[in-house]
Amino acid sequence: MDYSSAAPSEVRRLIREGILTGQTSGMCAGYAQANLVILPRELAYDFLLFTQRNPRPCPVLEVSDVGSRSLRFLAKDADIARDFPRYRIYEKGILTGEYTDVSDFWRKDLVSFLIGCSFSFESELLEAGIPVRQIEEQKNVPMYNTSIPCEPAGIFHGNMVVSMRPIPYELVTKAVQVTAAMPRVHGAPVHIGSPEAIGITDISHPDYGDSVTIRPGEVPVFWPCGVTPQNVIMNTKPEFVITHAPGHMFISDVKNVNLKY
Amino acid sequence: MDYSSAAPSEVRRLIREGILTGQTSGMCAGYAQANLVILPRELAYDFLLFTQRNPRPCPVLEVSDVGSRSLRFLAKDADIARDFPRYRIYEKGILTGEYTDVSDFWRKDLVSFLIGCSFSFESELLEAGIPVRQIEEQKNVPMYNTSIPCEPAGIFHGNMVVSMRPIPYELVTKAVQVTAAMPRVHGAPVHIGSPEAIGITDISHPDYGDSVTIRPGEVPVFWPCGVTPQNVIMNTKPEFVITHAPGHMFISDVKNVNLKY
Repeated sequence: MDYSSAAPSEVRRLIREGILTGQTSGMCAGYAQANLVILPRELAYDFLLFTQRNPRPCPVLEVSDVGSRSLRFLAKDADIARDFPRYRIYEKGILTGEYTDVSDFWRKDLVSFLIGCSFSFESELLEAGIPVRQIEEQKNVPMYNTSIPCEPAGIFHGNMVVSMRPIPYELVTKAVQVTAAMPRVHGAPVHIGSPEAIGITDISHPDYGDSVTIRPGEVPVFWPCGVTPQNVIMNTKPEFVITHAPGHMFISDVKNVNLKY
Repeated sequence: MDYSSAAPSEVRRLIREGILTGQTSGMCAGYAQANLVILPRELAYDFLLFTQRNPRPCPVLEVSDVGSRSLRFLAKDADIARDFPRYRIYEKGILTGEYTDVSDFWRKDLVSFLIGCSFSFESELLEAGIPVRQIEEQKNVPMYNTSIPCEPAGIFHGNMVVSMRPIPYELVTKAVQVTAAMPRVHGAPVHIGSPEAIGITDISHPDYGDSVTIRPGEVPVFWPCGVTPQNVIMNTKPEFVITHAPGHMFISDVKNVNLKY
């Protein structure tokens, strides 16, 4: 089933009903998708400061009010606890479970951070004639931990996570131009070419998501990724955090073109 | 004395020594200037959230660590309490004093927010052949309270403040293009043309700064302004806040061109 031209509200309904539970790359072309971090209020200042200091991996699209499962900007009818296809719960830095609904874990002190996702710019890449391999291969995007340090903030510190798309050499400049114009969904690549230069030792074994084919004449291009907070959370070991499962995003009602500053 | 090509560190030294105490429009062409809001830590989350929800008037360039008077990004040798030409102190929403040095008021629980300033893009406007009236007339920029509501966050709510520059009709499009490319120092105008449409009743009496001449064939163009937090603070009446005096900015060591996302 191809959801590339489906309405975001329709896809969110299928997700909420448990009919769609997979990754969301390629769905609802032109609409912004979002990563998720849900934290207790007592950690919210440090985390919001972490995003301010690291806008490339963590471009915040919306922050909920304390305790609220609703959004005001990205979608009016959203339920944050049910509208992602898959969630992760981290306790003291350990991944303790994956869920398709986190209603039962909700607490009145939770704050939700929705962070721009590079799936958003893939429809613009396709429009510009640039291939997106994991959509062709019907997989999740490959994501890697790197050696690129984030700016620390309060208790939060750690390295950047990146997503990778193989791009034909002759289209690399165009891929930079297209994505650089979309800073709120990660913007320009953070690295082009050498996985080793950013601490990735085995490109065929991503830390999150699936491996994809890199063809002759293609170069791996790396974008900052909204899974970065999960790597940071595993480092920092806070008591209780809910995130999305990598690649399993919230699909908003806001078009990419309306995310300009 | 013309400081347009002076080094930021030299101007900051003159400011710290009390030799320069005036407004900073036109100084250190090409370098980012910054607004200031200093708050107790207990208000910092609400204020940081206010800036996240209102990035046009409040594009945050740097947030200090709690209690620190130093910066890490905008300048390595800065003293936040002495390197602005003029400060304001607000107690319970009342402006209780202006100072050229706020060292004596420093507290260990203070957090400083440095917010992009539209003075930063004036050198780019001049470079593009667009006149900047208050620099020609050696005045502070005119700033106005408006009827444009900000998105509320926690205790903070209120209307946007704007700066105004009269632009010849045939250069308005170019002025939009030049400034839209610089979102971290307020970016594109928020309004072009009718002061009444955004709640400004008397263009010749700005709420902050100086009045400037609008010549025949020119249109008033309004940009979001980093004095917005001061208007919001007067509404919200927190116990204790330090800000810069409007137009009396911090001049950073970071070039505008390096403020890209």
